[in-house]
Amino acid sequence: MGYNFACDNLFNRNFIMVLASIITIGDELLTGQTIDTNSAWMAEELNKIGVWVKRRVAVGDVWDDIWNALDEESKIADIILITGGLGPTADDITKPLLCKYFGGNLIVNEQVLRHVKYLFEKVFRRPGPILERNLKQAEVPDVCTVLMNERGTAPGMWFEKEKKVFVSLPGVPHEMKGLMKKEVLTRLQRRFKMPFILHQTLLTYGMGESFLAEKIKDWEEQLPGHIKLAYLPHYGNVRLRLTGISDDKNKLEKELEEQSKKLKPLIRDWLVIDDDMTIQQVVAKILKERKQSVGTAESCTGGYIAHLLTIDPGASSNFKGTVVAYDNKVKEDILNVSAQTINSAGAVSEETVKEMLKGALEKLKSDYAVATSGIMGPDGGTEDKPVGTVWIAVGNNRKIEAQRFNFRFDRVRNIEQTAHTALNMLRKFIENHDSSA
Amino acid sequence: MGYNFACDNLFNRNFIMVLASIITIGDELLTGQTIDTNSAWMAEELNKIGVWVKRRVAVGDVWDDIWNALDEESKIADIILITGGLGPTADDITKPLLCKYFGGNLIVNEQVLRHVKYLFEKVFRRPGPILERNLKQAEVPDVCTVLMNERGTAPGMWFEKEKKVFVSLPGVPHEMKGLMKKEVLTRLQRRFKMPFILHQTLLTYGMGESFLAEKIKDWEEQLPGHIKLAYLPHYGNVRLRLTGISDDKNKLEKELEEQSKKLKPLIRDWLVIDDDMTIQQVVAKILKERKQSVGTAESCTGGYIAHLLTIDPGASSNFKGTVVAYDNKVKEDILNVSAQTINSAGAVSEETVKEMLKGALEKLKSDYAVATSGIMGPDGGTEDKPVGTVWIAVGNNRKIEAQRFNFRFDRVRNIEQTAHTALNMLRKFIENHDSSA
Repeated sequence: MGYNFACDNLFNRNFIMVLASIITIGDELLTGQTIDTNSAWMAEELNKIGVWVKRRVAVGDVWDDIWNALDEESKIADIILITGGLGPTADDITKPLLCKYFGGNLIVNEQVLRHVKYLFEKVFRRPGPILERNLKQAEVPDVCTVLMNERGTAPGMWFEKEKKVFVSLPGVPHEMKGLMKKEVLTRLQRRFKMPFILHQTLLTYGMGESFLAEKIKDWEEQLPGHIKLAYLPHYGNVRLRLTGISDDKNKLEKELEEQSKKLKPLIRDWLVIDDDMTIQQVVAKILKERKQSVGTAESCTGGYIAHLLTIDPGASSNFKGTVVAYDNKVKEDILNVSAQTINSAGAVSEETVKEMLKGALEKLKSDYAVATSGIMGPDGGTEDKPVGTVWIAVGNNRKIEAQRFNFRFDRVRNIEQTAHTALNMLRKFIENHDSSA
Repeated sequence: MGYNFACDNLFNRNFIMVLASIITIGDELLTGQTIDTNSAWMAEELNKIGVWVKRRVAVGDVWDDIWNALDEESKIADIILITGGLGPTADDITKPLLCKYFGGNLIVNEQVLRHVKYLFEKVFRRPGPILERNLKQAEVPDVCTVLMNERGTAPGMWFEKEKKVFVSLPGVPHEMKGLMKKEVLTRLQRRFKMPFILHQTLLTYGMGESFLAEKIKDWEEQLPGHIKLAYLPHYGNVRLRLTGISDDKNKLEKELEEQSKKLKPLIRDWLVIDDDMTIQQVVAKILKERKQSVGTAESCTGGYIAHLLTIDPGASSNFKGTVVAYDNKVKEDILNVSAQTINSAGAVSEETVKEMLKGALEKLKSDYAVATSGIMGPDGGTEDKPVGTVWIAVGNNRKIEAQRFNFRFDRVRNIEQTAHTALNMLRKFIENHDSSA
């Protein structure tokens, strides 16, 4: 993992880099109760407008720690984004602290107050009067620009101090995202002159990170200093991401295109698509192009493949449905797997998974199907079929292919790995057996 | 969100707190390509052995940034845990840097070398000779204690400097976790004298964070300084977590027990369970106690409820299976929903979701079932049924209850919220209609 050129390389090329630091506030981030998904999302959005995130810091609900973080991060970054510490049961630390840090006083903002009242009366429809602690959300430092939070009660706050921009946002992801998209990103673009940061991603499957690196070593070494390569391995896929930075967008686009053109023949055998897509998005794209559909018969993956195939919009045009046959009786009753097959070959076997696939094709009436059966752990393994043993079948009414895998992870990872492997098998099957032709 | 007492309160009570800081290294953490799940897991494990995480910092693959982070974090923490920057395609920055920082030389560790060779020859079974870049993983600074990584090629490294402990771990979550559990946590416990940090969690449903806070205000104010309360809202549930710190484990356990006993009557109407469980774990527990089972008929949730019910071990004893009926034909063919119902009332309606539920009970032969149908967005909404409209039914062969919801989130959040709401409805249904009696 990681870029093969240090990020600092980018700074030696006369670009005036706009740097950001993200400070997240909240004890729950330091006790492991909450996984910080905000920072990654914010970093990605900042990247798109040409801002480079230099550091991320998480601190607890502690006055001195927050204060020090503001001091330190403003030394290294132009933009300091702060999330969390603003909820109705929060410590009442962050807002007073920001007020003092920027030298202001807390005042009631009438627009925010109206909005809080509206939310409680019309949207949340809570019984009884609005609580004092909710009304207090309308108090803001008089030295900030208030950013209206349409999705919640805590407003965003924009401060400036010694040419640095500080933006405080609520920690609720849904609210933070709304504010970033509607207010923060456009204001930052107006406030700073940014270079262009562009990415070009190629999704590969079937070759490990280090072997890929070996194959493309010479190509990688000839990359110009303002274009970097990252290896992003994920469940058997490796995404190769080229990142370029320039003041000339058109030129950079062309350069990335050229580099990617040189790279493709070197990784032809493992290239899935030259786009930043997940494997389920690739499958959906192929099916849509062919006006075909898929259904799944899942045992060990417990509906996770169906979930992957339905998280993106528009799934209904190419996904028929799923039978999660966790109980063997369900395999028999709905998928028509014969009791004899299960008894003789076992639920985790080539025979069973193939019969499950046939049942799915018949019952779901899809053009293709995927079937899984395996032992995800931690219990249930035997000497013949240890934990991690999985049978996957893919196919259509003319042909079925099945393969055994031996994963060696924990339960959750085994489920995820099985689902991604199954979707990759399906993709290859469709591409190799063009049954629509 | 956040504790209602500042973390600093804990420090004024004569406990010698052992403080940790977590440094994560890798550009992919600063560009949003990777969500940092490691830090939360590490923090939770450290908490369990009495270590308090004071800060978390993420830096890129940049020499100065890593060096400065080591300097800064060792000023505020006793233990500095470092993840990432060690993979075979990494920048070759982190290991040389650690070597220089602690004043050593890189040498080949024979045990690690044997392990790397073993993995490539026997486990990964890659064709061809082992690459130089993989063999280099066996090089370690001669001033560290090597921690063997059974799950991968990059070893952990334990350094000490000026009474501070620094541990460098690979960034792959599966490998990091193995090393933490097998090596790091027990070594830290031998190395430092820790106080006890204990948590007691109560799961509530149906009341917002600020109203709960209002209800339990007086109780919260009487909490002793070494016990703190956190509100952790999550999809309509709010977890109330008491955290206590003490040198006397038994006394602390008793204190937490007493506080929790005083709290329970105040939140009786919303209390789900006095344990740190997810809603799907609560459902599984109730079903196991009653030796009963559930099945699901899912349209808009696309298998996500089935996924939640199967991510924990032992699911097969109380989960029968699922029909994901994304296509209306599947609703008709497998779940026996009448075409007329779908035509007249619509796929997203009380009538359809109730028929889906009946079909699930019949086909999956489960004691209880859950059914969902809704419009998850971003498209597909109408004036009558805007995006976020969801019908959920729960029931058994004797009784069915259905309810309409109007969520107002994005697609992914709507799916998650529907699934959690459905599981909560099921829990209440089972508790209110004890059909096993």
